[in-house]
Amino acid sequence: MSENKIPYKIYLEESEMPKAWYNVRADMKNKPAPLLNPGTLQPMTAQELGAVFCDELVQQELDTENAYIPIPQEILDFYKMYRPSPLVRAYCLEEKLQTPAKIYYKFEGNNTSGSHKLNSAIAQAYYAKNQGLKGVTTETGAGQWGTALSMACAYLGLDCKVYMVKCSYEQKPFRREVMRTYGASVTPSPSMTTEVGRKILEQHPGTTGSLGCAISEAVEAATSTPGYRYVLGSVLNQVLLHQSIIGMESKAAMDKYGIVPDVIIGCAGGGSNLGGLISPFMGEMLRGERNYRFIAVEPASCPSLTRGKFVYDFCDTGMVTPLAKMYTLGSNFIPSASHAGGLRYHGMSPVVSQLYHDGYIEATSVEQTSVFAAAEQFARVEGILPAPESSHAIKVAIDEALKCKETGEEKTILFGLTGTGYFDMYAYEKFNNGDMGDYIPTDEDIMAGLKGIPQFPGNEI
Amino acid sequence: MSENKIPYKIYLEESEMPKAWYNVRADMKNKPAPLLNPGTLQPMTAQELGAVFCDELVQQELDTENAYIPIPQEILDFYKMYRPSPLVRAYCLEEKLQTPAKIYYKFEGNNTSGSHKLNSAIAQAYYAKNQGLKGVTTETGAGQWGTALSMACAYLGLDCKVYMVKCSYEQKPFRREVMRTYGASVTPSPSMTTEVGRKILEQHPGTTGSLGCAISEAVEAATSTPGYRYVLGSVLNQVLLHQSIIGMESKAAMDKYGIVPDVIIGCAGGGSNLGGLISPFMGEMLRGERNYRFIAVEPASCPSLTRGKFVYDFCDTGMVTPLAKMYTLGSNFIPSASHAGGLRYHGMSPVVSQLYHDGYIEATSVEQTSVFAAAEQFARVEGILPAPESSHAIKVAIDEALKCKETGEEKTILFGLTGTGYFDMYAYEKFNNGDMGDYIPTDEDIMAGLKGIPQFPGNEI
Repeated sequence: MSENKIPYKIYLEESEMPKAWYNVRADMKNKPAPLLNPGTLQPMTAQELGAVFCDELVQQELDTENAYIPIPQEILDFYKMYRPSPLVRAYCLEEKLQTPAKIYYKFEGNNTSGSHKLNSAIAQAYYAKNQGLKGVTTETGAGQWGTALSMACAYLGLDCKVYMVKCSYEQKPFRREVMRTYGASVTPSPSMTTEVGRKILEQHPGTTGSLGCAISEAVEAATSTPGYRYVLGSVLNQVLLHQSIIGMESKAAMDKYGIVPDVIIGCAGGGSNLGGLISPFMGEMLRGERNYRFIAVEPASCPSLTRGKFVYDFCDTGMVTPLAKMYTLGSNFIPSASHAGGLRYHGMSPVVSQLYHDGYIEATSVEQTSVFAAAEQFARVEGILPAPESSHAIKVAIDEALKCKETGEEKTILFGLTGTGYFDMYAYEKFNNGDMGDYIPTDEDIMAGLKGIPQFPGNEI
Repeated sequence: MSENKIPYKIYLEESEMPKAWYNVRADMKNKPAPLLNPGTLQPMTAQELGAVFCDELVQQELDTENAYIPIPQEILDFYKMYRPSPLVRAYCLEEKLQTPAKIYYKFEGNNTSGSHKLNSAIAQAYYAKNQGLKGVTTETGAGQWGTALSMACAYLGLDCKVYMVKCSYEQKPFRREVMRTYGASVTPSPSMTTEVGRKILEQHPGTTGSLGCAISEAVEAATSTPGYRYVLGSVLNQVLLHQSIIGMESKAAMDKYGIVPDVIIGCAGGGSNLGGLISPFMGEMLRGERNYRFIAVEPASCPSLTRGKFVYDFCDTGMVTPLAKMYTLGSNFIPSASHAGGLRYHGMSPVVSQLYHDGYIEATSVEQTSVFAAAEQFARVEGILPAPESSHAIKVAIDEALKCKETGEEKTILFGLTGTGYFDMYAYEKFNNGDMGDYIPTDEDIMAGLKGIPQFPGNEI
């Protein structure tokens, strides 16, 4: 089909929708390293993981062989409610930039949870239900993941207990109320409902909580309540597997119109969106079929790929989880509270980390005022108010398009637009008022974080 | 095509998109009555209207003859960014209700403004730009219309001055910041920037404003600033014309799959969504080609169709606008402040009013706690968090579907889902906490409002 027939938005027909997730680990020569039990430093067994996660999800977490995992019909049915997500040709942005580049974005914000998180939330909730469980627990900071999980659980009639960092619970009441509207119980963390919560409150009566503490409470609530398991919204291999739906739809839509991207760009916090978006394209590259440039964009305030170390570290600041081999800034690295967006995670998905380590992915970091400027520019012409997280990818897509303007190259750029910024208006207000700054950790800040990484033979930083 | 092949979401191809708006007035035997100059009680001339509105929009306002008005290419291009909006088969809601009814909804919330308002905002901004104007002014309460207009003006490079009711400006900072992100200037009303604003502030120094006052300021700002005109988001004939895109897309999508709705339901505040949704179906009925049931749903707290009078009245509480013949509760009728949703307008589109008066439309009113209960039920299965306004239509669609369950009839129901409730979480919070009440005006309240209607021969209440 000729280039000039490409519509603004490409939607797949229901019959063209992917019926399986793609597991990029099957095509990786260097597999991501296994999770380790922090006590024994031995790989976590399925049985150990099964105390915390659903059985089927444990299998997916450990599966490095099967390239395609069929999507259960019930999940396909749920996906139909909000998928396919549109693949949009950014004609208006191209015109505004006066670039010869062709820019596409895959927009995942067209569902009530407002982000791509729902793709994995429904899968994790489904397997929990299928195992006959009563409910799931999780933690949430700003609330995108908690919102997505609440929606999925409401749909399946599953209990959903969300531990929400207390300061977010109080300062961000809107996402809290979305979760409650979907029937979730939302508890400000630390709380009196868990042993670890009571202990923390005793030691620090006035604390407003942290993500690490909320994770600890959610894990305790899951493992101490019969019929419950814990679920997580990023980082894990299973989450990247579910998020491959983003890339598979993108690839199917592009294939339909004979479009081949030169550059694929995603924002990277824990890596779920980036990993999902690039998966099927990366598979082609790993199998030697085609070459692409992949760019991971992280905030300069929390630069795990560009300034972290590729070692084993805890997944949480409370150090109760298994150890994962990943690019990390240290589990007690705390990015500046003044950073407005998400992407504040200290580590990075082991799959993304391994691919970056092996040279398949580039990484770059950007400062938040430039990110909000890109977000505003994008919003005014493309009509979508992007989430700050997503806007990291917008910023670099615009930069790449402007390079094409200089060189005259007609490159095709694909980026992931993970969600909407409706609940981030305080940050936009700061930017609108000129009150937003940039916060780049010093080398001393980085070193202080890295020192918290567990030291054992072979894991020296 | 057989019934079981109908997808969850029906999207039109770009080639199937409507290229003209449909002007239902052309097929009405009893045309809506003309606007009157309140001083002379004579029909407003194009010249008089041209002092306030753009020339092309004046023509559209007065045009009762042409059934189809071509949509300019620039507006079609803008529509492509977020249209076609999906026509969704509510399979999950049907299953939840265990109804034999087939429920469809046309979802207009898939754009950053979060509602259908953008359909007319871009048209009004385009004609202003095309006339060589520098900018437009408007008022906004909760901010949906202001947001949509800001987006449209940003896209066209047009100045946008929004007068926002002061209490909303202070209590709803998020929509204000969306508007500012799109480059609009947002002024809390009453303000010192207009004569009428200064006068009101002198008389009532502590006032938090009203929509009527904001309209007066916006009109003054438009007529006293060279190169500016005033624009409005509902009620006017031109707005219903632009909103006909909703109904035309719905009809084209349904025709494509051989679906014929039995009942078409829309929420009704000023009438822009309802009028737009029903237009092409109503045209068929007016031409005697097919019969439909149309239901306008209004809040019990502001029941203009079900408890108002069909007479000439001012469009604003400040009584500076022309007189429109419509169902009205009186321009100084103030619905309870405790009502959470929009739809708080005292009057109703003259087109919708005339069609209702002539028996083509039914009307019903619903109480807000039942509306929020329906909204929550819908959100949990359909995955969209609906705006309170839209949820009035959901409530009656569910009621109709439950009637089908009793009778066993397999009726096809279409309703308009005008927008999302992301900025209405305070209201949801009230509902979630059990703190929401119902507020139905007494007969005395209604009479007090009606007494404010201007009295002249032929306009007795």
